[in-house]
Amino acid sequence: MSWLDLPADTGFGVDNLPYGVFSTEGTAPRTGVAVGNSVLDLAASTGDDVHATGSLNAFLARGPQAWAELRARLTGWFTDEAHRGAVEPHLVPRSEVTLHLPVEVADHVDFYSSQHHAENLGRMFRPDSAPLTPNWKHLPIGYHGRAGTVQVSRTPVVRKSGQRKAPADDAPTFGPSQRLDIEAELGFVVGTPSELGRPVPLSAFGHHVFGVCLVDDWSARDLQSWEYVPLGPFLGKSFLTSVSPWVVPLAALEAARVRPPARDATLLPYLDDTDVEPWGLDVGIEVRLNGELVSCPPFGLLYWTPAQQLAHVTVNGASLRTGDLFASGTVSGPARDQRGSFIGLSWGGREPLSLPDGTTRTFLEDGDVVTLTATAPGTGGGRISLGEVTGRVEPARAT
Amino acid sequence: MSWLDLPADTGFGVDNLPYGVFSTEGTAPRTGVAVGNSVLDLAASTGDDVHATGSLNAFLARGPQAWAELRARLTGWFTDEAHRGAVEPHLVPRSEVTLHLPVEVADHVDFYSSQHHAENLGRMFRPDSAPLTPNWKHLPIGYHGRAGTVQVSRTPVVRKSGQRKAPADDAPTFGPSQRLDIEAELGFVVGTPSELGRPVPLSAFGHHVFGVCLVDDWSARDLQSWEYVPLGPFLGKSFLTSVSPWVVPLAALEAARVRPPARDATLLPYLDDTDVEPWGLDVGIEVRLNGELVSCPPFGLLYWTPAQQLAHVTVNGASLRTGDLFASGTVSGPARDQRGSFIGLSWGGREPLSLPDGTTRTFLEDGDVVTLTATAPGTGGGRISLGEVTGRVEPARAT
Repeated sequence: MSWLDLPADTGFGVDNLPYGVFSTEGTAPRTGVAVGNSVLDLAASTGDDVHATGSLNAFLARGPQAWAELRARLTGWFTDEAHRGAVEPHLVPRSEVTLHLPVEVADHVDFYSSQHHAENLGRMFRPDSAPLTPNWKHLPIGYHGRAGTVQVSRTPVVRKSGQRKAPADDAPTFGPSQRLDIEAELGFVVGTPSELGRPVPLSAFGHHVFGVCLVDDWSARDLQSWEYVPLGPFLGKSFLTSVSPWVVPLAALEAARVRPPARDATLLPYLDDTDVEPWGLDVGIEVRLNGELVSCPPFGLLYWTPAQQLAHVTVNGASLRTGDLFASGTVSGPARDQRGSFIGLSWGGREPLSLPDGTTRTFLEDGDVVTLTATAPGTGGGRISLGEVTGRVEPARAT
Repeated sequence: MSWLDLPADTGFGVDNLPYGVFSTEGTAPRTGVAVGNSVLDLAASTGDDVHATGSLNAFLARGPQAWAELRARLTGWFTDEAHRGAVEPHLVPRSEVTLHLPVEVADHVDFYSSQHHAENLGRMFRPDSAPLTPNWKHLPIGYHGRAGTVQVSRTPVVRKSGQRKAPADDAPTFGPSQRLDIEAELGFVVGTPSELGRPVPLSAFGHHVFGVCLVDDWSARDLQSWEYVPLGPFLGKSFLTSVSPWVVPLAALEAARVRPPARDATLLPYLDDTDVEPWGLDVGIEVRLNGELVSCPPFGLLYWTPAQQLAHVTVNGASLRTGDLFASGTVSGPARDQRGSFIGLSWGGREPLSLPDGTTRTFLEDGDVVTLTATAPGTGGGRISLGEVTGRVEPARAT
């Protein structure tokens, strides 16, 4: 349907059109749209300076009508041969671009919305209690993360130091994390801000949220377990959160919308999505360690949808800003090979994972490369790609 | 020492010179310095556009040498009569200005650094355990707050709704918070950014931190107690955090530096301030409810200093950005009338506070006005003022 010579399994067809920020050697970062193996230079092809700012924020702030109009325009460009002459000069091979952090992150929230993940961690950390805390099925638990350390894919994952204390130790020690982990998540990017004091209902999700990226919320489990009572995770998470460079618009995920799992508890009205079209998303995530597939977390099984997360964040009147990023929390399914973290895959380090090369792994070792990819049904009948977020673990540095 | 006709007890003498953002009717917000009952228009008097941006961030990003140079220049202007003719036209009466949020907040961290406050809350919430969690004396516990809802003093405190569940209830209910509270804190504003991966040692505190403001971290205790296990406070705090409009430079607090309380636990080297000049600060906070003094929290008794807080935030390599705000957490002393929150003053609502008008108070009622002020020893021999942060509680709105 396109005059573009798209690879059959591209994942970046005309039904995807994700936005990112790119540069080529010697040029300034600007907005681009990925299509096939190319990037369309939006600043040059549209002549609109909003795409020359070096982040998506200014465009995202324009709101859903502007998003839809540009998407329709781009679809026309790529499907109607008449535009080929005007468009083709602005296509840059993806192999030649450097990708940058697509969004200046305003507030960063991380949820805990996978029942399988939360139950696994509950069983590991609080074996004498019920796996889920009493609030878990009544509200999407979340907390604020550090916005300033959200970085684009390929940022090195330098092993960080901090305090950790094993239960048997008398006092904490300081040193490089020995339980470095990933968290495989999706992240949702807010475009349209909201007013202080005005909650965003479930039905307004698509008005405020522009799109989706992959998130790897690198975690130092030993730091986290010592620090997190009573005010939650802090330094165990704040050193780095990596995001994929391409933000897939919600409009590209219409065919991926699914109903979330049945709910066990009666939801308060602001969270009750039984009578609205819900925002479960059939996105399949793949986790690769050094190139080998180790897990396939199914986002569609998430108990709390991103629309419920957004309704919860704002129900107390907290406002949204363009660039707010809220992530799902680790996505895990019921099977072992659907767990989106190594603490899950290795059951807290007690059941090492066997790798195809004959080695085993509990937590990450120096030199390990972890790559998350994801695909979802596209509106064109095939699958669209969310791209990838990857990082290589580097040894701790002397400070 | 100044040609200015300063009131004797101004608190805004030439040894203070705090920075804020102001406007007068029909003019754009710009940077000003408070002196006596006036504001010096820095944009106009210096001709430097950095002071015309509507926030302090661009000036703060210039770093400590620029801060010191401007302070020296201003001190010269206000103490040498020769400058009077050039300076006086740029003084605006403080009664005529509107004050704005002084800083675009990057990341917002809230600590929990008062031992008396933490012990009080531990006794109330976990009566069967030790009042302090095992980590409390080993690291300054903190968590990220919502940066987008930090607002300037006088922002109305609309009572917010959310989920709350009393232990005896079967299920949560939704409605306006019935336990609306304050938290009397100091906040520290970062000017100089730091590099990802590079911890900021105790000795570099003054290189990165520009100054101090008052913070009232409004809290909905009923929302907080239902949501906060296991990932920490979220909606119970995120609806509003108010800050005072004047940021007092650290340079104005040299005479207020004191040694913090003796430490009971051996500190890891990155937190050990026994051999550096510590950053305890003898700042006296006053909390007034509807004009009546109800508490005098002593900041100087804080167990963890702001320099230790900053060293902890960055020890895992997390970077700082200009505009990062980190607050102390509720400041409380050992006496009842030194507790910096109503949950402390009323012992969780069980011991109502008697007010001078014959009424009692547990948590805040609609119409209540809470005002925090603070003073500290200045370098001129008197006391300097940190100004005030105030807010009036308004009834819940239908949403």
